[in-house]
Amino acid sequence: MRDGSGAAGPSRMPVDARMVPGGSLRFKNQVEFLIEIDALKHTLRQTVLVDLSRRENSVEHSWHIALAAMMFKEYADAPGLDTDRVIRMLLLHDLVEIDAGDTYCYDEPGKAGQKEREDRAADRIFGLLPEDQAREFRALWDEFEERRTPEARFAHAMDRFQAFVHNYFTRGHTWRQHRIRKSQVLERMQPVQAIAPRIYEYAATLIDDAVGRGYLLP
Amino acid sequence: MRDGSGAAGPSRMPVDARMVPGGSLRFKNQVEFLIEIDALKHTLRQTVLVDLSRRENSVEHSWHIALAAMMFKEYADAPGLDTDRVIRMLLLHDLVEIDAGDTYCYDEPGKAGQKEREDRAADRIFGLLPEDQAREFRALWDEFEERRTPEARFAHAMDRFQAFVHNYFTRGHTWRQHRIRKSQVLERMQPVQAIAPRIYEYAATLIDDAVGRGYLLP
Repeated sequence: MRDGSGAAGPSRMPVDARMVPGGSLRFKNQVEFLIEIDALKHTLRQTVLVDLSRRENSVEHSWHIALAAMMFKEYADAPGLDTDRVIRMLLLHDLVEIDAGDTYCYDEPGKAGQKEREDRAADRIFGLLPEDQAREFRALWDEFEERRTPEARFAHAMDRFQAFVHNYFTRGHTWRQHRIRKSQVLERMQPVQAIAPRIYEYAATLIDDAVGRGYLLP
Repeated sequence: MRDGSGAAGPSRMPVDARMVPGGSLRFKNQVEFLIEIDALKHTLRQTVLVDLSRRENSVEHSWHIALAAMMFKEYADAPGLDTDRVIRMLLLHDLVEIDAGDTYCYDEPGKAGQKEREDRAADRIFGLLPEDQAREFRALWDEFEERRTPEARFAHAMDRFQAFVHNYFTRGHTWRQHRIRKSQVLERMQPVQAIAPRIYEYAATLIDDAVGRGYLLP
């Protein structure tokens, strides 16, 4: 794996400007971006797949929560929510992890410098795109990070809920590994409570159940 | 890996109806769907990652082409293209492979019965959703399969072009492995030519170059 180590392996072929239609720098940059983002498939998360076979990567997580948004949108307490913007935001929300790696949500020391690392990564990665698209993608990422719009808040709710479901339905695999407490998970679920109270209600029930079963510390 | 073997491993926990808000069957089915689709992360494709480290799975591919659609939409020869519908289509277009597995595009014998396998898979997998969402997701999948709308045609173009880029930029890794000929790849690129001629122009240039370099048989 390649956890936040920057550019891809030594064997990577360059995109030859002489081969792109009309020698367009724009087209070349877009192909380079397409190839670059392949690297996110190497960023491993703490979460494991439901069958416990291996850790999930950030691309798989992004896909999963984009589909989750399509399905759970009816629970968003936000009339007129633009689900398609939520989906686009979720597809690119983890791209910065190509450089910055995944920071485990309960790893408080690991969070030191995370914002700076991710901002630097956003500059580099979105900066590979043609200027107008760099702005468009960066604006979606900024919106996600700032958590002010209903779309960003619902995107965060999906981000939290999917990881939660993976934890509970693997009998607390990652919670037990890191000796996570109920209060930590309840806090982690606050963005869900704020925008999707019905989903939070479910999570809260599972959290109590998880403590009873020993998946979570009380 | 679990290539088209149906339901997930033996350790999978059931979704307990007594824990979902108000005992809602709808909510329960949605959580079950969320857990079920995790299985697509086990469906391996023939394509390898750009750094050659391993095969790509169908979830990673789906995410990659959804972002590709966001970026390459300007090349679609289809005024008013609904890119967001393309993205939603791409996110779910491979879900049938949970049961049906991935069929390699140049494996003609392997394609026997593919349509029937995938239709059966679509019935089962989309059928896990509440009825209205089953209809919505299935309609998107049917639209993709039927390739009649500009959105479906552009979705196919992204599907083909991303795999093509992976092949070329891994020095023809999978093409060489399967002794693929130029004519096969040109044919595979026809859906790109039809809806995104500029992207096709690039692909055609790389195909000639690939023959010259020995990545593809002439």
